[in-house]
Amino acid sequence: MDWGLEAQDRLNEIAGCSLTGPGVTRFPFTPEHAAARKIIEGWMTRAGLEIRLDAAGTLIGRTGPADAPAFLIGSHQDSVRGGGQYDGIMGVALACLAIEALNTRGTPLPCAIEVLAFADEEGVRFPTALLGPRALAGTVDPEVFTLEDRDGISLGTALDAFGGAQGDVVGLARDPGSVLGYLEIHIEQGPALEQADQPLGVVTGICGIERNAVRFAGQTGHAGTVPMEGRRDALVAAADFVTAIHDTARNWPGLRATIGSISVFPDVVNAIPSEARLTLEIRHEDDRRRADFHAEAREIGAAIAQARNTGFGIEQTYAQPAVPCDPALVAALEQAAPGAPRLPSGATHDASAMADLCPVVMLFVRCRGGISHRPEEFASADDMGAAVDAAARFLAALPNRD
Amino acid sequence: MDWGLEAQDRLNEIAGCSLTGPGVTRFPFTPEHAAARKIIEGWMTRAGLEIRLDAAGTLIGRTGPADAPAFLIGSHQDSVRGGGQYDGIMGVALACLAIEALNTRGTPLPCAIEVLAFADEEGVRFPTALLGPRALAGTVDPEVFTLEDRDGISLGTALDAFGGAQGDVVGLARDPGSVLGYLEIHIEQGPALEQADQPLGVVTGICGIERNAVRFAGQTGHAGTVPMEGRRDALVAAADFVTAIHDTARNWPGLRATIGSISVFPDVVNAIPSEARLTLEIRHEDDRRRADFHAEAREIGAAIAQARNTGFGIEQTYAQPAVPCDPALVAALEQAAPGAPRLPSGATHDASAMADLCPVVMLFVRCRGGISHRPEEFASADDMGAAVDAAARFLAALPNRD
Repeated sequence: MDWGLEAQDRLNEIAGCSLTGPGVTRFPFTPEHAAARKIIEGWMTRAGLEIRLDAAGTLIGRTGPADAPAFLIGSHQDSVRGGGQYDGIMGVALACLAIEALNTRGTPLPCAIEVLAFADEEGVRFPTALLGPRALAGTVDPEVFTLEDRDGISLGTALDAFGGAQGDVVGLARDPGSVLGYLEIHIEQGPALEQADQPLGVVTGICGIERNAVRFAGQTGHAGTVPMEGRRDALVAAADFVTAIHDTARNWPGLRATIGSISVFPDVVNAIPSEARLTLEIRHEDDRRRADFHAEAREIGAAIAQARNTGFGIEQTYAQPAVPCDPALVAALEQAAPGAPRLPSGATHDASAMADLCPVVMLFVRCRGGISHRPEEFASADDMGAAVDAAARFLAALPNRD
Repeated sequence: MDWGLEAQDRLNEIAGCSLTGPGVTRFPFTPEHAAARKIIEGWMTRAGLEIRLDAAGTLIGRTGPADAPAFLIGSHQDSVRGGGQYDGIMGVALACLAIEALNTRGTPLPCAIEVLAFADEEGVRFPTALLGPRALAGTVDPEVFTLEDRDGISLGTALDAFGGAQGDVVGLARDPGSVLGYLEIHIEQGPALEQADQPLGVVTGICGIERNAVRFAGQTGHAGTVPMEGRRDALVAAADFVTAIHDTARNWPGLRATIGSISVFPDVVNAIPSEARLTLEIRHEDDRRRADFHAEAREIGAAIAQARNTGFGIEQTYAQPAVPCDPALVAALEQAAPGAPRLPSGATHDASAMADLCPVVMLFVRCRGGISHRPEEFASADDMGAAVDAAARFLAALPNRD
């Protein structure tokens, strides 16, 4: 059996569980989700797993003694609007195939294993995400069930109609002693593995994220009547900031700093901008380095404001700490995927929430052009086959708990 | 008589001809315009002028033989929304006062003089402007009469209802031999005279204006998963451009370059901008220097695009040539306003359109903080008094044509 080609076939099939339009659009607790669930149940059955849906809508396939501590492996079934057919669902498919491969070869599993297909990681339908892993970790805020989608349907109502049970979600919290760890296989969603010419990468941690609102305040004036000398142009100061942040960030290993949004006031062709507002997102695997860069950005902005005679402010609007992967699991995954480089994850994953419950690790699979969340998203059968092999070796090498 | 205080009183009074709200809001061919017209007729009467409204809605006060060539002096009666009480209307008030001052002193006028109160220079109510001076210069496009305001009333209909006659506007074109020149007194709308500590300035020309659409095209990507190295961030390239244009323009005497508007796509906090669009407005009294700067901006943009690995485009979307003031009139105005510095006008004025008919010149009056088009717009009684004196001397010294 060519597990990579099999993975490609399965992902092509389940990509059909989508709203019409380009790419894959599969939101949680919808008819498309229900159709995908049926297909995933087929995968789990072929892997010899016992299947159940938990109260949070996570489809769980388990093998091994009922009360034994289990190693968990999974990802999410949902997509963004017009997304690709690998993000999330590939991790579920490859987990099933890794167990099926071990069964085919007659390799015994050293402990109980559960494959988890989480309902909602992208957070597109409801203004929340990660319900499934948070439920297992005991970190669900019951308020989220009242959040509504565009049609006014609450998360709780949608979950119950799908076969979940909002009232029982709090009871899903696992005893940490019953969970041995969590592995997530995911496409990289970036270009690092392609640039390194490697099919697989071992994730050392998930970057912390902070978002900042940045503002420069100058003075508007007529573009014709105010001479250049003495202008207090807020956009010019903001431009200095954009350039300085970008060029400084390039010298900070592992750091990502992005100014994704900018607006000026009054925003007309013949007026000097009196105000520029921009967003600054900073990500790093090490929260202290991220804080250091925030301080550096503040100094850069203040110096520019002085030079350009403008006001300056930076305010953190959001922060999410980094999640380090477990060193022992990282080492074990490197044994199972020889030659795979270490790299951080710049994006959040189900593993981010699972880390509140147990040691986590992630295996990244190369994706073409680093493209994700678009119909063109692609991982090759060869690379997915390599991931199945690595995951199977990893599971087989787990400490024997039977 | 203190002509400056008189000017202040008259401008305070006519400022009441406004929609309610902060500052002055007086659009053409409205009840506010009609009320202002009555007051201006009073000013013209006190200056001994014969009054008529022409077909384009310009209120004209004339003194001197009916068929003799006339020197024209004027400005506009309208304002922007929430504007000040000096822009435009001050030029009409001071023109009347200059003639009244000469009459009071018994100084004979050397030629026929007409004071012109144009209806619409700001172009706020209808998407066109300068109807009055264009009518005199014979440059009106008859299509403009079909243009509508927000309420669906056409310019032609509004003009006719006010006492004008759209069908007769084309016939207003003056024989250049019948017009000796045009003087416009206007607040500077910039900070140059205040910085030079001078009440008056002699305008050497009205800057040409060009507007350009500038675009940088890079590649979007996830703010977390795409390392800094190798990013093709369109906003970073655009920021380089903003800074370079501003700092280069400071070294070009008399040039103004403004990037007043910017937008990026996709414009979200966690995505690298794939596209940045901005406007570049360039103004200079010398069209060749403006073209030189355009070429320089093109080179700057191309070099940045190469360095940042983005696409770059610049497209001129609008161009209006410079209008030089008449050297003989400039010299005569300098005689009448000793010590007044020469300066260009960065903004367009009625004089821009009058230049198609006759030699023009402008006298700028200092305004506080360079502020215009806002309720805080202010020119002092002393400065306006100095302008009345200078205009009176200028008119009295015109070549004798009686």
